[in-house]
Formats: sequence, C-alpha cells, structure tokens
Amino acid sequence: MPMVPMIEYDRATPPVKAIYDDIMATRNSNWVNNFWKVIANHPATLRRMWATIKEVMAPGKLDPLTKEMLYIAVSVTNNCEYCIHSHTAGARAKGMTDEQLAELLAVVGLANETNRLANGYQVPVDEQFRPKQGA
Amino acid sequence: MPMVPMIEYDRATPPVKAIYDDIMATRNSNWVNNFWKVIANHPATLRRMWATIKEVMAPGKLDPLTKEMLYIAVSVTNNCEYCIHSHTAGARAKGMTDEQLAELLAVVGLANETNRLANGYQVPVDEQFRPKQGA
Amino acid sequence: MPMVPMIEYDRATPPVKAIYDDIMATRNSNWVNNFWKVIANHPATLRRMWATIKEVMAPGKLDPLTKEMLYIAVSVTNNCEYCIHSHTAGARAKGMTDEQLAELLAVVGLANETNRLANGYQVPVDEQFRPKQGA
Amino acid sequence: MPMVPMIEYDRATPPVKAIYDDIMATRNSNWVNNFWKVIANHPATLRRMWATIKEVMAPGKLDPLTKEMLYIAVSVTNNCEYCIHSHTAGARAKGMTDEQLAELLAVVGLANETNRLANGYQVPVDEQFRPKQGA
Amino acid sequence: MPMVPMIEYDRATPPVKAIYDDIMATRNSNWVNNFWKVIANHPATLRRMWATIKEVMAPGKLDPLTKEMLYIAVSVTNNCEYCIHSHTAGARAKGMTDEQLAELLAVVGLANETNRLANGYQVPVDEQFRPKQGA
Amino acid sequence: MPMVPMIEYDRATPPVKAIYDDIMATRNSNWVNNFWKVIANHPATLRRMWATIKEVMAPGKLDPLTKEMLYIAVSVTNNCEYCIHSHTAGARAKGMTDEQLAELLAVVGLANETNRLANGYQVPVDEQFRPKQGA
Repeated sequence: MPMVPMIEYDRATPPVKAIYDDIMATRNSNWVNNFWKVIANHPATLRRMWATIKEVMAPGKLDPLTKEMLYIAVSVTNNCEYCIHSHTAGARAKGMTDEQLAELLAVVGLANETNRLANGYQVPVDEQFRPKQGA
Repeated sequence: MPMVPMIEYDRATPPVKAIYDDIMATRNSNWVNNFWKVIANHPATLRRMWATIKEVMAPGKLDPLTKEMLYIAVSVTNNCEYCIHSHTAGARAKGMTDEQLAELLAVVGLANETNRLANGYQVPVDEQFRPKQGA
Repeated sequence: MPMVPMIEYDRATPPVKAIYDDIMATRNSNWVNNFWKVIANHPATLRRMWATIKEVMAPGKLDPLTKEMLYIAVSVTNNCEYCIHSHTAGARAKGMTDEQLAELLAVVGLANETNRLANGYQVPVDEQFRPKQGA
Repeated sequence: MPMVPMIEYDRATPPVKAIYDDIMATRNSNWVNNFWKVIANHPATLRRMWATIKEVMAPGKLDPLTKEMLYIAVSVTNNCEYCIHSHTAGARAKGMTDEQLAELLAVVGLANETNRLANGYQVPVDEQFRPKQGA
Repeated sequence: MPMVPMIEYDRATPPVKAIYDDIMATRNSNWVNNFWKVIANHPATLRRMWATIKEVMAPGKLDPLTKEMLYIAVSVTNNCEYCIHSHTAGARAKGMTDEQLAELLAVVGLANETNRLANGYQVPVDEQFRPKQGA
Repeated sequence: MPMVPMIEYDRATPPVKAIYDDIMATRNSNWVNNFWKVIANHPATLRRMWATIKEVMAPGKLDPLTKEMLYIAVSVTNNCEYCIHSHTAGARAKGMTDEQLAELLAVVGLANETNRLANGYQVPVDEQFRPKQGA
C-alpha cells in the first residue's frame, strides 16, 4: 500500500484528468500506471514529472529503447522494484528480447563489480582518459 | 596513488605480459590502462576479469556502444570516478557524441529521481507490469 | 520474517525490559516497534542503539520534525522499506502533512538527479563553495 | 576537469545567457556556478533543470533552509562531492550554523546505520506504521 | 515472480544440467537455488557466473566463512533481499552464530554511519594512511 | 579541505584532549587521525562516536581483523575514499596481506555483481534460505 492514496481517474480533478489523458494518448494506452496515481496527490509534481519524462524519454540522439535500457540499468543498481518492473515492461514493449535483457543485466552486474575494484584499489585515472579541451 | 603498486609491462611476469598483450591486441591499442596494472598484482583476478570483460562487452544482441553507455549509467549512479572516465572515453572512441552523452546523463539523472519517488511513496507494482509466464 | 526471532516484552530479560520501558516512556506510547524486538537479540546493540537514537534525535539546534525528515531523505535514497515506513509515520506523528511529504520527496528526487549530473559530468567544485577557514 | 567544456557567460548563446541572467537575478548573485556552465552544453537540459530547481527549491510548505538540508542529506548519502559543497554553501548562506550542520550529519550518519540494521535483519514493517487509507 | 521463467532441472538442456550437477556436487546438496534457475535462461552467463563464484569463494588466503560474511556486508549495504537471505544462510551453514551475525551487522551499520560523516565533512585522507610504495 | 576546521591537539579543550588521549592510548599510537579532528568540532558527536567505535570494533565473537575487513567491504561499496584508506591501513596494521586484500576485493566486486543480477531478475527468495523460527 502506498504512503498516500492513489487518485483514480474517476475522482481526479480536471487538471489531473487532463494529464492522465495526455499520458494515455502519448502512450497509446487505455490505463494509467500507479506511479502517476500516487504522484497525483501533489498536482504540481505530477505536471512537472510528466513534462520531464515526456521530454527526456522522447526520441533524440538516442532511440527510445536505448533510453529504456539505461533506465533499467540505473533502477537495478538502485534496487527500485517498481522501476525495474515498469521499465523492463517498457523496454519489452519497445522490442527488447529476453536475450537483450540478459546481456543488459550482464553489463550492469559487471559494471557494479569493476566499479568496486576500481574504488577499492583507488586506481588513478589515466591521462589518456581525461577529456581534452581547449584550442 | 593506488593501494598497491602498478605493474608496468616491463617488469610483469610472462603470464601477466601475455594478458597485457591480449588487451592491447583486442583493443588495437599500444598501451594498457591503470585498472589492469593494478589488478595485475593478483594474476588470478587479472585473468578472470579480462576474460569476463572480453565476453560480456563483445558484440552480441546489444552493440558495443550501447554496452558502453550502460556501463556509464551504472558508474555514474555509483559515482566511480575512474569508471566514469574510462567508459566515457570508451564510448567516445566508439562514436558517442556530446549530444548523446547529454541525453544519456539526462536519462540517468531522471531515473535516479523517479527511483526515489517510487520508493519514497512505496508505489505498488502494477499487475500489468508483472511478467507473464507459462502457456 | 526477520533473520532472528523477535523478542516480545513478556519473554524479555529484565535489562531488555528496562530498555523497552524506556522506549515506551520516552515516546509516550504503549508498544515497542519491531526494530527493537529484533535488535534485542543482542542486548549490547540494543542498549547502544537506543542511547544513540535518544541522543541524536532529541531536540537540539534542529527540531525533531526536521530530523525525522532528514531520516526519511536518507532512507528513501537507500531504499530501506522499514525505515521509510517507520520514519514517515514518525514525521506524521510530529505534524508532517501530505503536502510537506510531497515537497520533501520532490527535493529528495531532485537531489538524486543532480547528484548524477554533477558526477556524470565530473563538475569541478567552485572555489566560492569551498569552506573558508582560519584567521 | 569536466567531461565537456564549461560555457562561460561571454561565449554563451543568447538563450543560455538569458538563463544565466535569471540564475543570477533569482539568487541575487553576480556569478554562475560550474554546474550550470557544464549543463549549458545541452541547452534543453539547462532550461529544464533550472526551471525544475526554481520550482522545487522555492519556499512552499517547507522553508528553503530545510530543503537545502534535505539536499545535503541526499548528497552525503550518495557521496557527491560537488553537491555536498554547493548545498552546504547554500545552506550556510541561508543561515545554517556549524552546530546545525553537525546535528544534520549526525542524523544522516545514524540513518545510514539503522537502515542497514533494518535491512540486515529484514525487520518486518509494523502494522502500526503502515499508512491508513479510506473511510 | 522473476522477470524470466525459472528453468527447473527436468526441463534443462544438457549443458545447463551439467552445471546444475556441478553446483550440487560442489555444495554437497540435492537442490539448486533460484538464482541459478533464473540465470540459466542465458546459459553463457550461467557458465561464467558459476565458474567465477567457484573460484572467488573457494578457500584461499581468506577462509570461506569470512568470504560469506564479506558477501553479507555488501548485500546489506546494497539492500539486496535475495542476497541477504542466501548468504546469511550460507554463512550459518558454515558455522556463523547469531552472536557473530549481530557483531557483523553492528560493524556494517557503523561503517555506513562513519562513511557518511567522513563524506559529509569531506575529511582529508591522512598522509599516514596513504600506501607507501617503491624503494 | 574539510567543511569545518580540524581541531589540533594543542588547541583542543580538556574534554576533547581527554578523548584524543584515549584514542592514542587505545591504539598505542602517538597521533590522532583527521576524522577525529574534524568530528571534534561537535564534542558530543566525538564522544559518542569514539565510544561506539571502541565497543563495536573490540574483539568479540569476531576478531578485529575480520571486523576491519568488513569495514573495508562497506566503504568500498559506498565509495568512501577516506574510509577505504583508513580501514585498509587499519587492516594492514592488523596483519592483512596484499593477497588477502585482493581476495577481499574480489569478493566485494562479485557480491556487487550478483546483487544486481538478483535484483534485475527479481529472483524470489528460496524457502530453504528463510530463517526457521520457533519450536
């Protein structure tokens, strides 16, 4: 059970309903997921987070599936159960296969491993890896 | 300064040298980065980690650039300075542009934000997001 | 189910009972929460943790509600389900409203986002932000 | 050195300059901190992040100093050096004393400790702490 | 429910069965735990992870119980519920008592606390603690 | 530079001096490390943290070297540079060899990896791993 009640479509205020409608229209779906129903308790946050997600997750120089997979990588590293489920579902809906998920998680696991070896040994950054700027 | 000395090529034992040679050959480069020179203090770990990275980061159902970007996403979330530098350099060498880096970091930042909103409100996982299994 | 049994009041040893009594007296409540019943398996830790919490969470230069909200901020960032529940309940008991919780979580989410942008870009600390010391 | 060049005011494009001007006007200051100069490489992110921070950190049901302290709590937990410096400076500018900082960090440290005791023992959430909803 | 189906022994392919057999033989047990049944969806990862765990967790300069306790320390810090359960069970099977678990968790909690005090105050590393290298 | 000045022995108040003396006597050393000189700005925290560390890190059912290694495991996972240095030095002073450090970090790296595989796949806890309680 969430820390605040979920705002179902039927009892939402018109501004909240308008955002729910936009979520469904944008996603071409006929339901709103729990994240938004919870966030809707604070309409300013609902408006801001939806605008942000629409902008950040839109196709750009990275395609939407790559963005979903990056989202999974972060959510797994942070162990956010809700986010692991919602973004794995999102990536599957955009075409991610079981084998791609397996490779993604293998990279995420490995990165978490070498992150600790690098930190534990306090490996100094190679000059060759530092960004070159100027001129 | 790292917690153990870095093993330079010239004073490496033959088995360590052989792995250094394979690292350079695989990457078509003429130098070995500090991570390996530090790890080389424990040859069993050097052998194991290099074999693992070669396998996991090889092209598969995900392309090598996508894998590097997933690595960055994890390293940024964990704040591993060495790994942020090495894998951002790696991704740039594979063609990542400044704009792609910007979009990548925007997704990573956003995922870290919504991870906390989902956790803080204890949003329950939607049934629709749960994996369906079996026939 | 916890990793060790919970020590209920009735079967607690006198020293454990005395701490349970102090917990209830300090909080003006008539029950002891599960955290303490689990910790009570190791009486030295029970004694030490309760003394620490009494000292750190007491009113000081920060008021108790602010301290509870800081506790929530950490617990959400670490995704500790128990602590999110216990300290959100604690903050509500001290007067936190739904809107204050919403603002708190908005800040926590945002901080987690900009933390990653700062790390991902390796933004150098401004001289103006460094503490000034001496004379 | 950051991963991308810092965009100084003098060589910024007019839209970036306009945001720099708004940052300085809002803060009643005459300089722009490095975070923004780095983010400015991706003007869409600059615009979005500044709008978000202005909205979230504005006075609301929580006062600006409390918000800065929550920001510090998260940044310390994540070990973001830049953010620790910038938000500690920000909190001091809003009146935080050394003693308040000491109490804040004592709570942050303690919360990180009990988070792990709760997780390590898998303490079950008390029914009394679960949110009550509905009539 | 896991994100992919669990591969039970009876419907496993021969190479997966061979690894399951080796897991049971190595552990002198007659069942395979869920981690492997899930990982088995990607046989290359199953093979690699099992070989790695066999190598890293084998007796060496550290005894197997110490290694299990280090595993618990990491899993508690990351809040990985599965790993907390599996490695606490593993450590108990190797002789860890309730009191040793209590001391282990007390250290883990304390380390998480002082990590944040060190970070929050940005305590500089003492010269005496830096590794001394060279002749 | 730390966020607050370091309190050197010579200008410490008598109660702070007394704790510095106890730190040096307990450790049989003739200097006080920076952590305490920073914490000393808040004498109540200095007193509490030193008492806690003396109690938790004392020999008990786990020996002091094992406790130092657990401390390293947590500090590496959290990437606390100060703590990695101070506790690696502490463990070396208690006899930890380079090879033991290598094995420790191999376990820490591996645990961080499998933590993410377990979370990413949402592997359900085996009944066999759950603690059995009662008669």
